[in-house]
Amino acid sequence: MDLKIKHLLDIASLSKEEIEDFLNLAENLKEILYRPIPKVPTLRGKLIINLFYEPSTRTRFSFEKAAKTLSADSLTFTGKGTSIEKGETLLDTIKNLEAIGADLFIIRHPVAGAPHFVAKYSKVPIINAGDGTHEHPTQALLDLLTVKEKLGTLSDLKVAIIGDIKHSRVAHSDILAFQKMGSTVWVSGPVHLLPDIKEENYFKLSERSFKICYKIEDAIKDADIIIALRIQRERHGEALIPSFLEYHEFFGLKPEHLELMKEKTILMHPGPINWGVELAYEMEKYPFQVILDQVENGVAIRMAILLRFLTGERGYEDFN
Amino acid sequence: MDLKIKHLLDIASLSKEEIEDFLNLAENLKEILYRPIPKVPTLRGKLIINLFYEPSTRTRFSFEKAAKTLSADSLTFTGKGTSIEKGETLLDTIKNLEAIGADLFIIRHPVAGAPHFVAKYSKVPIINAGDGTHEHPTQALLDLLTVKEKLGTLSDLKVAIIGDIKHSRVAHSDILAFQKMGSTVWVSGPVHLLPDIKEENYFKLSERSFKICYKIEDAIKDADIIIALRIQRERHGEALIPSFLEYHEFFGLKPEHLELMKEKTILMHPGPINWGVELAYEMEKYPFQVILDQVENGVAIRMAILLRFLTGERGYEDFN
Amino acid sequence: MDLKIKHLLDIASLSKEEIEDFLNLAENLKEILYRPIPKVPTLRGKLIINLFYEPSTRTRFSFEKAAKTLSADSLTFTGKGTSIEKGETLLDTIKNLEAIGADLFIIRHPVAGAPHFVAKYSKVPIINAGDGTHEHPTQALLDLLTVKEKLGTLSDLKVAIIGDIKHSRVAHSDILAFQKMGSTVWVSGPVHLLPDIKEENYFKLSERSFKICYKIEDAIKDADIIIALRIQRERHGEALIPSFLEYHEFFGLKPEHLELMKEKTILMHPGPINWGVELAYEMEKYPFQVILDQVENGVAIRMAILLRFLTGERGYEDFN
Repeated sequence: MDLKIKHLLDIASLSKEEIEDFLNLAENLKEILYRPIPKVPTLRGKLIINLFYEPSTRTRFSFEKAAKTLSADSLTFTGKGTSIEKGETLLDTIKNLEAIGADLFIIRHPVAGAPHFVAKYSKVPIINAGDGTHEHPTQALLDLLTVKEKLGTLSDLKVAIIGDIKHSRVAHSDILAFQKMGSTVWVSGPVHLLPDIKEENYFKLSERSFKICYKIEDAIKDADIIIALRIQRERHGEALIPSFLEYHEFFGLKPEHLELMKEKTILMHPGPINWGVELAYEMEKYPFQVILDQVENGVAIRMAILLRFLTGERGYEDFN
Repeated sequence: MDLKIKHLLDIASLSKEEIEDFLNLAENLKEILYRPIPKVPTLRGKLIINLFYEPSTRTRFSFEKAAKTLSADSLTFTGKGTSIEKGETLLDTIKNLEAIGADLFIIRHPVAGAPHFVAKYSKVPIINAGDGTHEHPTQALLDLLTVKEKLGTLSDLKVAIIGDIKHSRVAHSDILAFQKMGSTVWVSGPVHLLPDIKEENYFKLSERSFKICYKIEDAIKDADIIIALRIQRERHGEALIPSFLEYHEFFGLKPEHLELMKEKTILMHPGPINWGVELAYEMEKYPFQVILDQVENGVAIRMAILLRFLTGERGYEDFN
Repeated sequence: MDLKIKHLLDIASLSKEEIEDFLNLAENLKEILYRPIPKVPTLRGKLIINLFYEPSTRTRFSFEKAAKTLSADSLTFTGKGTSIEKGETLLDTIKNLEAIGADLFIIRHPVAGAPHFVAKYSKVPIINAGDGTHEHPTQALLDLLTVKEKLGTLSDLKVAIIGDIKHSRVAHSDILAFQKMGSTVWVSGPVHLLPDIKEENYFKLSERSFKICYKIEDAIKDADIIIALRIQRERHGEALIPSFLEYHEFFGLKPEHLELMKEKTILMHPGPINWGVELAYEMEKYPFQVILDQVENGVAIRMAILLRFLTGERGYEDFN
């Protein structure tokens, strides 16, 4: 398959085929991580620049591990200690780092659409690693990969996403991704954190593939997958409504929900987890909790992305 | 040519021949950056330590790219998260990092002369990457390289430098560098930001090669090169005089200046740029604006510097 | 010798044989640092993650140098710019980074026992790089290595440790380490910074091998080794009692002490040094001051630790 997209900005602009291509490539690449020396020379001499204007552990370190596994060089830029402090714009930063030799940028930014803006002017690929409350496409891809590994399919599933849907870029990318693969997404959470009518129209890819539930029980009943979201304290104002305790009481996943769930419902969370809030502590022992599998698959997905955008077709054949 | 200098501290102490040697070496090395795998093993096993006590994007990342291209290892030390927070002095930091195995230090420091002070006691080369308002020698070298590439010569040129001459370490290094290569430097800017009589005597290498102009038009008229400087807000006090708007009105480069300029006057800026202040937005499209060429040449110059100070003569012959 | 310990958490839990094994391995490995290209491929593909929740220069950079010398990859995590800012716990951070592919963690943390806590749940080795006021085992190992190199033995020595014994994790590790090797440790310092009776019982490994002196002169008289400690301002409250000046007057090592000392008493300090406080400036010239030797040996010790915990027996034989 020919890679037509130049940047990875969001799930909204990916076709089902493009998504499948990333998943297939990641599945192929994953074995490298289990070799005695988990390293191939494929991207030797390539320079990846991580521009992280918001904190990150999983995303940033898994991109770093992916780069090291493929022998690319990487430099990380966090805004601290750089000319951002002297007032340089994001776009000028990109242009300057391109002139220095950047081959690809990974950008996390608090402003929704920031990666899209710079992608218009960038000569090299831009990978969105989370833009404000908009999208987090690589997270959705690793979530798909994890479900595909566990269930063998991505179609005809019921996916429940619980929490602060409004502010969650992970939710936004997952809502679109699972529908594109042929599944139905049910979202639930505090009513003021659910999509409004305009957002509902945006997220509903077909009449029956997206549903908003006011009762968490409706969403998780018979779900194949439950994705619990983090309360993003940093995107709310001073007052957190509901409070952590209230949230746990009304929207936290707890052992009492197990009887509503299917026998093998998969439980996911993008991390970092507020244990005792989104998830009761007991849920860590739930046998179909796959939260660390998601993290591990994040490395494979990011290897696929780096390879695809830095080598195009060639890389794919090498590993098929 | 034998490299006699042990450190690169300023342009003031370099001879014309030493400057030419760096430029020639950089020209030779530049092709490595265009190879499919832009990497040579020349500095494998060498440890470069970047000590950046002030923010930097261009300088720091181009030194990093240069190190990676030559296969050197590098570690970056920004004062945050190190024993600087426990009160360790710069000199003790240097001595300790030498004991750990540093082969070369790149130092940016807010205090003018800080690299000179530690160089007296350091066993390994010290490269000044900007010391307060004193000098920024690698910037001047990359500016020379850019002009040499564009105009084929560095002698008998009229170089106009516009802006906050007093606080600009870039200006100070450029003023000396262009004169040493046989050109004339004309500076202009707000009167209180121009050199005083003592500084004028220091900068004037010959009776006719350095001029201070109170009217920007005198400086840019028939100039071969115009270098616009950044307003260094961080080196002024509370009140910025002139304000950004006033600065743009009286000292910003604008389309109306084009008729004064030669047909192919080269326009440079060390970055980061305050667009709409030092340079009107329209000047980005000016065909002889070479600001990103400067950035790219920064990598080649820094490769030459690393190679010269870490291998001496040997490196040069390898690439000639 | 078989490596039985899975983590390096403190000197208290190491046997004399285990300590000797690390020292022997470090002595073997040290020559690599003097090769023209100081790099061996032994740990290629291994990922070391440095988790530094407190500032560090010597420890962090020497672990980095050790990793590069052995061709391991490393990533550094300082809490800034990571999900720690979103409230993620240390244990969740460890689990996530394990899922990403970490092969070993180096942890510096302000809380005594933090590395011990996470070691219970970690699948990969945890190396304690300093935990609050508890222990700093790799510092004690490099101190032993330095003494062994200088004096040829580690037994039957009189070791004087001077300063803030109570808050010094270096002192705590050294007190145990030197006793385990068969030497006697004498500590002195301001009375309120000396061990209390409970601590004395903990530190005294045999009836005659640990002594608390109220007069510094008793400790340093005929000592084979004097270790001066840093005043750890950050672990005291607002009021520093004694003040720096008072400390120097009563507990600083000064030329006047030379007549009490043996002819070749070795003088050590873990750094960073407050010159003029713990040590008079004149002591820098004292011929048996080995402070930078300690730093250099820190690299060799950390190479031994990385090799031992990442390869077990194999690594040792490669270099014997």
